[in-house]
Amino acid sequence: MARINDHFLKLKAGYLFPEIGRRVNAFCEENPDAKVIRLGIGDVTEPLPPAITEAMHKAIDEMADRSTFRGYGPEQGYDFLRTAIADNDYQARGVNVKADEIFISDGSKCDTGNIIDIFGQDNKVAVTDPVYPVYVDTNVMAGRTGEASSSGQYSGLVYLPVTAENDFTPELPSESVDLIYLCYPNNPTGTVATKETLKKWVDYAREKEAIILFDAAYEAYIRNPDIPHSIYEIPGARDVAIEFRSFSKNAGFTGTRCAFTVVPKDLKGRAADGELVDIHPLWNRRHSTKFNGVPYVIQRGAEAAYSPAGKAQINELVRFYLENASLLRKGLEAVGIDVYGGVDAPYVWLKTPRGLTSWEFFDRLLQQAHLVGTPGSGFGASGEGYFRLSAFNSRENVEEAVKRFQKVVS
Amino acid sequence: MARINDHFLKLKAGYLFPEIGRRVNAFCEENPDAKVIRLGIGDVTEPLPPAITEAMHKAIDEMADRSTFRGYGPEQGYDFLRTAIADNDYQARGVNVKADEIFISDGSKCDTGNIIDIFGQDNKVAVTDPVYPVYVDTNVMAGRTGEASSSGQYSGLVYLPVTAENDFTPELPSESVDLIYLCYPNNPTGTVATKETLKKWVDYAREKEAIILFDAAYEAYIRNPDIPHSIYEIPGARDVAIEFRSFSKNAGFTGTRCAFTVVPKDLKGRAADGELVDIHPLWNRRHSTKFNGVPYVIQRGAEAAYSPAGKAQINELVRFYLENASLLRKGLEAVGIDVYGGVDAPYVWLKTPRGLTSWEFFDRLLQQAHLVGTPGSGFGASGEGYFRLSAFNSRENVEEAVKRFQKVVS
Repeated sequence: MARINDHFLKLKAGYLFPEIGRRVNAFCEENPDAKVIRLGIGDVTEPLPPAITEAMHKAIDEMADRSTFRGYGPEQGYDFLRTAIADNDYQARGVNVKADEIFISDGSKCDTGNIIDIFGQDNKVAVTDPVYPVYVDTNVMAGRTGEASSSGQYSGLVYLPVTAENDFTPELPSESVDLIYLCYPNNPTGTVATKETLKKWVDYAREKEAIILFDAAYEAYIRNPDIPHSIYEIPGARDVAIEFRSFSKNAGFTGTRCAFTVVPKDLKGRAADGELVDIHPLWNRRHSTKFNGVPYVIQRGAEAAYSPAGKAQINELVRFYLENASLLRKGLEAVGIDVYGGVDAPYVWLKTPRGLTSWEFFDRLLQQAHLVGTPGSGFGASGEGYFRLSAFNSRENVEEAVKRFQKVVS
Repeated sequence: MARINDHFLKLKAGYLFPEIGRRVNAFCEENPDAKVIRLGIGDVTEPLPPAITEAMHKAIDEMADRSTFRGYGPEQGYDFLRTAIADNDYQARGVNVKADEIFISDGSKCDTGNIIDIFGQDNKVAVTDPVYPVYVDTNVMAGRTGEASSSGQYSGLVYLPVTAENDFTPELPSESVDLIYLCYPNNPTGTVATKETLKKWVDYAREKEAIILFDAAYEAYIRNPDIPHSIYEIPGARDVAIEFRSFSKNAGFTGTRCAFTVVPKDLKGRAADGELVDIHPLWNRRHSTKFNGVPYVIQRGAEAAYSPAGKAQINELVRFYLENASLLRKGLEAVGIDVYGGVDAPYVWLKTPRGLTSWEFFDRLLQQAHLVGTPGSGFGASGEGYFRLSAFNSRENVEEAVKRFQKVVS
């Protein structure tokens, strides 16, 4: 008799974005003429940069010719891309990450979910609250939690609140934890971590032999020169951290799919018998057994992100979205809203006015301003009373959204 | 203290293809002038068909234009591709599979590995022997086995021998099993399953409430009109089977990455409390939580495989590889080798001559004929004394390989 994985039954049915979709669709059916502006999901809106599409066209021509056709590539990614990443994202910033420590993949969502395959069931897992839901849900599926409480918190996980009260900087946990998810620039709060904050976590991980799963998918949005782009800028981090990066939010690859994960060769975990075991070969084995590489055409596109033209075009894209974020910030502040994030990140995190719950504010904004955002409570109990707006949109829509927002709130 | 998944330590270090690579590289270093012909790994050699590359070029142009740009797509795949598959691969053959039962993915290797996430730890798993190693290794990683014996068999798995003695048709297991991996046309043996064989398994699964994981990645190679292309041609299979298909071996997508998995809405498993649970929403949740969809450009390429031009071009590709397989078969039979498969499949499976072990024959073929094949024992204990040759190569190389093979064996 085939038995299902019962842990799946613990997952809360109303996943955030489907529920948003349901409410927006219902509204649109009742109000077919409403021009709804969506600042909810963090999806890019601008086309792929020309340097990238040119490289992809060229790669397709190679695939159409027997003499240049590519079949199975290395599961870890082609050397041309791994080297471009190591050189540009790390070595050029003085950070020690080598090409063979980089695993090309089809998404940071996939990697942050799949990485837990290589860790034992008995690790104590810490997440921030609010948090990107994938970190939690994949641990629920894997059986590392109990049931969810009414506020949506799963027993067995350690939640680290990040709110205005602690300046969105999580405290070290009071109980020992083994795996720690950190995401900076942060989704959903749009806040960043200073060197001091990251050093505190690296020191903690070194002391406890914990491992930090560092999601840096929004790294390209950091403009403040004092904010680290990589956790490996912190001394000792190579011994305790895995870093996830993506081409989704810089090069516009949300529908094109390419990302990478850095697993330093220095990183170790403990086997059940207490022996130290290298993590790099474990992930290599997992990655090459359950994944077959990113399409050649896509890898050539990603490589072009590091050409001089590609870099300039991506910089322009990021600048454009950051200007949107700035317009949102300023527009909201002008009507007395408490706003966080949105400086070195494409997300603006705001305190709902007049003590409304996140979903109450969602409904009001949708009904009265035809604006869609994301309720903070959907990211965790400590997100209640907050609300996320995404800067991924046209300038025209952002400007219009600010006007409508101001009208509702004033 | 971060703890690794100790089950990974049970995996045998010498995975098949790396070991082949090691021996071939050593030979090539010692014999730099040898013209080695590789009939080992099952990787296509011919370029992508023009209908597909045209569609991909067009899709890239869409991605370069703001008005037609695509960000995140549905994790399950775009409707245009799911509908094309349902219509052409199933409905047109009178098989009841609907578009919303099809999940687009980046590979059958990935899906056959990932599918076990949704099943409980306590399922008894059956595999054929020889077998595609991913089915076994992913179950080892997930902790459903004990240690491996010296022959490479893991305790806890049920191995179903397929050899010349049983006409490469596995017997039903004597003990009850819950999950059964079947692959037809088969990798590595190149043999196919009749309706009667599949009916036997479907009936077994219905009786035992087992689930069949049916890997049909080589379906396009079936030319015998009596051989089923889908397990859903067998009455009752929708209640007990998941089917995996791929664009790798028909459309040449090994480096382009697109596949799909069919999870019928009729399929159910049991929760720990004995309740029947639908499998489709479980896989949907897994797929949308840990995967983010196949690139839009690639999905447009896959869709073009179903255009009239695409179908004709793919048919020609498959015909070409099958002709290679036929040349291999005939050439080997002419010198008295026992040959199996290679009629409705791109793999030829042969009995090693003079009682040589699979690896002895591998070394002899490499040293004396500069030919690379795959030792049958690498696919399992019952593959000992067998050897796999792949038909994926140029005509010239296949003809030359046959000549060299005949010289060594005669």
